[in-house]
Amino acid sequence: MHHLRIDIDRLLGRINALGEIGRVNGPNGEWGSARIALSREDALGRDLVVSWMRDLGMSVSVDAIGNAVGTWPGSDPTAAPVMMGSHIDTVRTGGRFDGNLGVLAGLEVVETVQQAELRPKRSLQVAFFTDEEGARFPPDMLGSLVYVGGLALEEALDAIDSDGVRLGDELNAIGYAGSIPCPAAVFPHAFVELHIEQGPLLEDEQVTIGAVTGVQGISWTEVTVTGQSAHAGTTPMRLRRDPMVVAAQVVTEARAIARRMGGTQVATVGHLNVFPDLVNVIPSRVTFTVDVRNTEEDRLQQAEQALFAFARRMAAEEGCDITTKPLARFKPVEFDDRMIDLVEKTAQALGHSVKRMPSGAGHDAQMLARVCPSAMIFVPSINGLSHNIAEDTAPADLAAGANVLLQTVLTLAHE
Amino acid sequence: MHHLRIDIDRLLGRINALGEIGRVNGPNGEWGSARIALSREDALGRDLVVSWMRDLGMSVSVDAIGNAVGTWPGSDPTAAPVMMGSHIDTVRTGGRFDGNLGVLAGLEVVETVQQAELRPKRSLQVAFFTDEEGARFPPDMLGSLVYVGGLALEEALDAIDSDGVRLGDELNAIGYAGSIPCPAAVFPHAFVELHIEQGPLLEDEQVTIGAVTGVQGISWTEVTVTGQSAHAGTTPMRLRRDPMVVAAQVVTEARAIARRMGGTQVATVGHLNVFPDLVNVIPSRVTFTVDVRNTEEDRLQQAEQALFAFARRMAAEEGCDITTKPLARFKPVEFDDRMIDLVEKTAQALGHSVKRMPSGAGHDAQMLARVCPSAMIFVPSINGLSHNIAEDTAPADLAAGANVLLQTVLTLAHE
Repeated sequence: MHHLRIDIDRLLGRINALGEIGRVNGPNGEWGSARIALSREDALGRDLVVSWMRDLGMSVSVDAIGNAVGTWPGSDPTAAPVMMGSHIDTVRTGGRFDGNLGVLAGLEVVETVQQAELRPKRSLQVAFFTDEEGARFPPDMLGSLVYVGGLALEEALDAIDSDGVRLGDELNAIGYAGSIPCPAAVFPHAFVELHIEQGPLLEDEQVTIGAVTGVQGISWTEVTVTGQSAHAGTTPMRLRRDPMVVAAQVVTEARAIARRMGGTQVATVGHLNVFPDLVNVIPSRVTFTVDVRNTEEDRLQQAEQALFAFARRMAAEEGCDITTKPLARFKPVEFDDRMIDLVEKTAQALGHSVKRMPSGAGHDAQMLARVCPSAMIFVPSINGLSHNIAEDTAPADLAAGANVLLQTVLTLAHE
Repeated sequence: MHHLRIDIDRLLGRINALGEIGRVNGPNGEWGSARIALSREDALGRDLVVSWMRDLGMSVSVDAIGNAVGTWPGSDPTAAPVMMGSHIDTVRTGGRFDGNLGVLAGLEVVETVQQAELRPKRSLQVAFFTDEEGARFPPDMLGSLVYVGGLALEEALDAIDSDGVRLGDELNAIGYAGSIPCPAAVFPHAFVELHIEQGPLLEDEQVTIGAVTGVQGISWTEVTVTGQSAHAGTTPMRLRRDPMVVAAQVVTEARAIARRMGGTQVATVGHLNVFPDLVNVIPSRVTFTVDVRNTEEDRLQQAEQALFAFARRMAAEEGCDITTKPLARFKPVEFDDRMIDLVEKTAQALGHSVKRMPSGAGHDAQMLARVCPSAMIFVPSINGLSHNIAEDTAPADLAAGANVLLQTVLTLAHE
C-alpha cells in the first residue's frame, strides 16, 4: 500500500470547473449542470476534459461513437492498461458529481501518480463514455455498450431524440465522431469506476465506501389500461369501466409485492398519463410505467409475473383492456469476485468503513464487465439525492473514494 | 292535453344545421361540434339561432352577459312568460345534442304552436345562456348564474381563460355584450329545459323520459401530495416517501367509499399529474382531482370527510405532505314538486315510460330554480355518451322529449 494521497482541492477544482459548463442554479444556493449528451454544453465539457488530459501529457483517442480515452503510458507498453472512468453527460437538471466524479478522480489519480514520479507497469487510462444517461438518446449507457460490442455502431448512430434528430449527426456536429473503430480492438486489463451511490444506504448506515457487488436487473414496462370515458356525475358506480381505478390498484400492489418479497426487490411507478385528464370525466385511458429491479434474475421474474398477473386480473374485473410493452430489460450483472475483494480490502487498509452492496442504478462499469474484470467504488450521496442539482457528497467522502480508486488502480497497474 | 305534435324532421334539420358550425368528424362517420363559449364558432352559432328566432317572429333581447332570449307574445302581455332553453356552447369535442336540443326544441315548440294557430295566454320564451360548459371560462353555468343574480356581472366579465383572455373582451368582440341588465328585472313564470341524460340509466332501464327531481350536489377538490423524489433503483422501499402510492390509495378508497355508501353517491378521479413523471424516478409530487357527488347534502359531506381523512392518514403514514384546494362546491338542488309531477304526468299521458331521477350533471335549470319553478326533461343517451362527438339520441326519443316539452309548456302557458 502506497502512502500516496490524492489532492482533494485539486479534484474539487476540476469538478466545479466542469460543473460551470451548463450551470443550473437552485433557489437556495445549490447548483448543478445541464449537459445533455451531444449538446453544445456536452461538447464544451468534452473539450475541457480533453484539454486536462493533454495537460497531463496523456494521449487522447476518440472512437466512432464519441467515447474519449486518455492514456498515460506505463513502463511496459505491451501490458494491457488499467482503465478508470465514467461519463460527463448529465440529465436535464443534473448534479456535479454523477459520472463526472469517476472521470475527474481518474485524472486526479494520474496527476498524483505523476507528481510522485511513479511509473506503474501498466498504462493508466481515463475514459468518458458517450450518452450514459440516455436522457436524450435511448438506451442509457449507449457509449459503453457500443465500446464492448453489445450494440452495433450503426444502430447507435441511428438513435433519434424526441425531436427526430439523429445521434450520428449530432456527434459529427460537435466534432466527436472519432476514427477509432467500435467495438474496441483491445480491452483493458481491468476497469474501475468511482461513482456517487445515488441512494441513501451508505449515509443511512454511516459507511464511507461501498464495494459494489453488481448491478440490479432492471425491468421497465409500459402498461396501458383502456376503459370507457364517461361523465363523472351521470354514470353510476356499477356501470363504470374506469382505467384509473385499475392503475391505482397496480401502483398499490407494486408497493405490496416489493415489501412482501423483501431483499433487494424494488418497484416504482414514476410516470402516469391520463386521457382525457379532466376533473369531471371518467378517463378512457391510463398509461403508466413500472420499474422493477432485483439483484437475482429469478426473483426479478417472479416480481414481474406476480405484478402483471395482478394487473390483468384487476383490468378484467373492471371490464378494461390492458396491454404491456417492454421498454427495457437488463439481467443482473455480478462483478468479478477478486475485484470486489480488492476494493473492500483497499478501503479497509485506508481505514474507511466499507460495505458490500449492489448498485440499484445502471453504470458504464456493468458494460465493461462483459470484457474485463470490473469494479465500482461508491461514496455516500447526501440525502440519497441524485439527478438533481442538490446532489452532493461531503469532500471527505469524495477524497476517501478517490484514494480507494488510487490505491486499487496502483495495485492493478503493478499486476 | 292538446293533440299537437312537434315535427321531428324540422327539429333534426335545425340540430344538424347548428352542428355544422364548428363540425368535428370522427373516424367512423360520427360527428359533433366544437363551439367553445365566445369563440368565432360560438358567434356563428348564436347568429344562426337568433336568425331562426327572428324568422319565427320572436323579438330577441341580449343581456349584458350575452344570454339571448327570444319572445313570442301571448294573449296576456301582463302575464309572466314561460321560458324554455339551455345553451349552445360546447366542450372542445362536443356532441350535437348537449344544450342545443333544449334550445332548438324550444324553437320547435314555438313553431308547432304557431302553425296550429294557437295563442297561449303567456308569452313563450326560448333562451340560450352564455358559457354553460365552463370549458373556456370558469365557472360552468356562468350565464344562467349571472341571469339569476348568483354571480355579479362584473366578476363574470372579468373571468379569464387559460391564455389570459378576458370574457368581457371576447363578448364585445363577438357582438353579444347586450344592453339588458343582469340580473334580469323580471323572471319567468316557469322554466323547462329538455336535455339529453348524458348518462346510461334511461337506456339501461329502457325508459324514454326522465322527470328530473333535482341536481346532485357537486364537490370538486384538487389534492396535492408531496413526498421525496429519489432514484427508483437505489432507494430501498423502507426509505421511500412516494406521493404516487398515496394518490393510488386515495383513488382506490374513493371507489370503495362510493360503493359502500350506495344510493346516488359517485366519486371520480379524472385528472392526475405527476412530477417529474419519469420511469426511473420516484415522484416528488402528485396532484389529482376528486369529483364527489350526492343528491343529499349530508351524505355528500360525509363522503368528503371520509375521503379526505383517509387521504391525510395515508399521507402521514408515507411521510408525505398533503394539501387540498376546493375547486367547486354546489349544494344539491331540488326542483319544484309540482313541476316534477307535471313532467311525469305529461309523459305518461303521451304514452311514454317515465322515471323520476336526479341529474348527475349541472344544468342551467338549476340556476333558474333559484328564481322560478323549474323542471328538466331527460331523454336517453346512446351508450350514456356525452361531451363526445359520438354523443347520440334516437330520433324517436328526441321527438318524445320535445313533445313532452311542448305539452308541459302549453299547460304552464295557460295557467
